Amino acid sequence: MGAEEFAVDHRIDADDDTVHSDWDNGREPALTVEPGDIVRISCRDATNGQLGPESTPADVAALDIDPIHALTGPVAVEGAQPGDVLAVELLEVEHEGVGYTLVLPGPAELGVLADEFPDPALHVWDLEGDVGHFGDGIEVPLNPFPGIVGVAPAEDGPHGTFPPRDVGGNIDVKQLTAGSTVYLPVAVEDALFSIGDGHAAQGDGEVCGTGIEAPMTVTCRFDLRSDRSIEQPQFETAGPFTPTGRDEPMYGTTGIADDLMAATRRAVRSMVDHLRDERGLERDDAYMLCSVAVDLKINEAVNAPNWVVSAYLPESIFPEAKRRPTRA
Amino acid sequence: MGAEEFAVDHRIDADDDTVHSDWDNGREPALTVEPGDIVRISCRDATNGQLGPESTPADVAALDIDPIHALTGPVAVEGAQPGDVLAVELLEVEHEGVGYTLVLPGPAELGVLADEFPDPALHVWDLEGDVGHFGDGIEVPLNPFPGIVGVAPAEDGPHGTFPPRDVGGNIDVKQLTAGSTVYLPVAVEDALFSIGDGHAAQGDGEVCGTGIEAPMTVTCRFDLRSDRSIEQPQFETAGPFTPTGRDEPMYGTTGIADDLMAATRRAVRSMVDHLRDERGLERDDAYMLCSVAVDLKINEAVNAPNWVVSAYLPESIFPEAKRRPTRA
Repeated sequence: MGAEEFAVDHRIDADDDTVHSDWDNGREPALTVEPGDIVRISCRDATNGQLGPESTPADVAALDIDPIHALTGPVAVEGAQPGDVLAVELLEVEHEGVGYTLVLPGPAELGVLADEFPDPALHVWDLEGDVGHFGDGIEVPLNPFPGIVGVAPAEDGPHGTFPPRDVGGNIDVKQLTAGSTVYLPVAVEDALFSIGDGHAAQGDGEVCGTGIEAPMTVTCRFDLRSDRSIEQPQFETAGPFTPTGRDEPMYGTTGIADDLMAATRRAVRSMVDHLRDERGLERDDAYMLCSVAVDLKINEAVNAPNWVVSAYLPESIFPEAKRRPTRA
Repeated sequence: MGAEEFAVDHRIDADDDTVHSDWDNGREPALTVEPGDIVRISCRDATNGQLGPESTPADVAALDIDPIHALTGPVAVEGAQPGDVLAVELLEVEHEGVGYTLVLPGPAELGVLADEFPDPALHVWDLEGDVGHFGDGIEVPLNPFPGIVGVAPAEDGPHGTFPPRDVGGNIDVKQLTAGSTVYLPVAVEDALFSIGDGHAAQGDGEVCGTGIEAPMTVTCRFDLRSDRSIEQPQFETAGPFTPTGRDEPMYGTTGIADDLMAATRRAVRSMVDHLRDERGLERDDAYMLCSVAVDLKINEAVNAPNWVVSAYLPESIFPEAKRRPTRA
C-alpha cells in the first residue's frame, strides 16, 4: 500500500464463531459495519489448519474435505440491498511465513490434469517476505491475495465453497492483491461478505488445484455503490499482471484444440514436460510449480474450429546457473 | 532488438509468386535457406490488400474471404526432417503506418460474440511509431507481431489458414514480437515455413476476430533443433506480457461459467458494457477495442463445475481527463 495511512475500525479473528465452510444467507453476521469502515480480518488456510510444516503427502491423502474452504465472516454491511454493488478495497494482505501446495486426488478431483496425477503430493513453503523457496534455488515471487471473496447468494440454504458463483466466492483472481478493489453484486440484505482461501502466490489458472495455500490477514475497506449494477464480479487493480510483477523473459507452451479446456490441458501438459526435460523437475513438482508460478492466457478464441491457450513460465524463478541459454 | 546487429542474407517480397492463402506441402518454395540464415520477409495484410485508408464498413461486408490470410513463403530450410524443431527467431517486425480492425459477420462468423454483433464494422488505424490512435484521445500501444507463423502440415493437399494447427499457423500469440523465438514441429522435409497476418497490436483472445491488421516486414533467423521434439508450438520471448508492456492499473471483468468459452463470452460482454457505460463508447467500437487492447486470462480452471476467465483493460490507453477515479 505504500505510504497510505489507514485506521482499522474493526477486527475479526478466525475462531469457531466466525469460521465457516459454506455460503448461507441465513448465517448470523460476525460483524456489522457501515460503508467506509475498515476491517482487519484473520483467515485460516483453506484446509482449516489440517496441515503443518511437518506434513507429508500421506496427510494430504487423509485430508477431511468438509472444512474446506475455511472462510471468515460474514460481514454485514448496513444499507446494502440486492442489486447494489459492494466495493471491497484491499488495503493490506499479509501471510504468516508458511504455505502449502497440494495435489489432491480422490473425490475433490482438483486440477486440470487430475486424471494424470492420481497420487497426492505436497510442497511445504517457507515464505520469507516477498519470496517463497521451492528448493534447488527456485524462488517464486509472492503476491498474497484472498482466493475467495464473495457475498451470500440469494438462494436459501448452504452452498459449497468450491465453485465460484455470480456473487463471487472462489474466483482465484490473483491480481486481487493489496491496492486492488473488487466489486461484488449484492444478492441479499446487508450483503454478508466472507473471505478466505489465502494464496501467497498463484499462477493464472491454478492448474494443480491449489496455490500457495496460506493463513493470511486481510485489511479491507467496505463501500456501497448503489449507482452501479453488475452481474458478476469486476475489479480494478494496480497489478502485478505477470508472475514476477515485471515484464521479463518467459518460456511458453501452446495448447491448440477445438475446446478451451482441452487446449488448457495440452498447454499445461507441455509445460510439465518442459520443466521435467529442461529443468530436471519431478512431474509432481513441475505440476505444482505450474499452479503457483505459470500463467494461462487465451491467445485466441476466434479461429474456429481451434482455439489457443498458452502457459507462461517466468525464467527468473530459476537460479542463474540453471538457466539455459535463451538464444541459439 | 536493441543494439544487436544482424546481416540480412535473403529477402522475400510479397508478390503473386510468394503470396498464398492456404497451407500445402506441395507448394514450391519461394526461397531455400540454410540453418542460421537471416531472411527479411514482406507480408501483406491478412485481407491481401482489399482494404485501404478510405474503406468503410460496406467494404468489410463485401470482402472476399478466399484471399484471407495472405501468407508469404514458403521458406524451405535445408536439412529439416519430420520430427525436428524449427526455431524462428524474430529479429525485427515493422508495420507500415496503417492498420484495420474489422467486425466481420457472415460466413466467417469471427468473434467470441459473433451472434451479438451481426453488422460489419471497421476501424482504420493511423499507426505512428509505437502508438495507434483510436480516436477520443484513446491510444493503443503497438507491439507488432505476425499472427500466423507455421510450417506445412504432413497431410497432402490444401488446408485453410483460419484454424491454428499442431504445426502452428494462426496462433495469434501476441508475445511473438521482435526478440522472441518460436519453435515449430516440422512435419515435412524442408519444413516449408510461411508467415503473415501481421498485427500491430492485439489483445490476448483477439475477441472480435481481428487485431490491428497491418502489412508488415518481418526479419527472422531460421535454425533447426534436431535434439528436441515438441507436439505443438512453443516459444520464448522477452515480453511484453501486458497490453502496454508494463504493470499498471487495469479494470477487470470476470466471466464465471461451467464452460471456458461461455466464461470468455461473459467476461467480454461485461467489458463491452463497461466501455459503453463508463467510457461512452459505441458497442461496435468497444468490441473492437477489446480485440486489440484487452487481455483474456484464465483465472482458474479447477473449481468444478465453474471456471473463471477475466478480461483486463489497461487504464493508460485513455487520456488522463477521461480517466475516472480508480478509488472511492
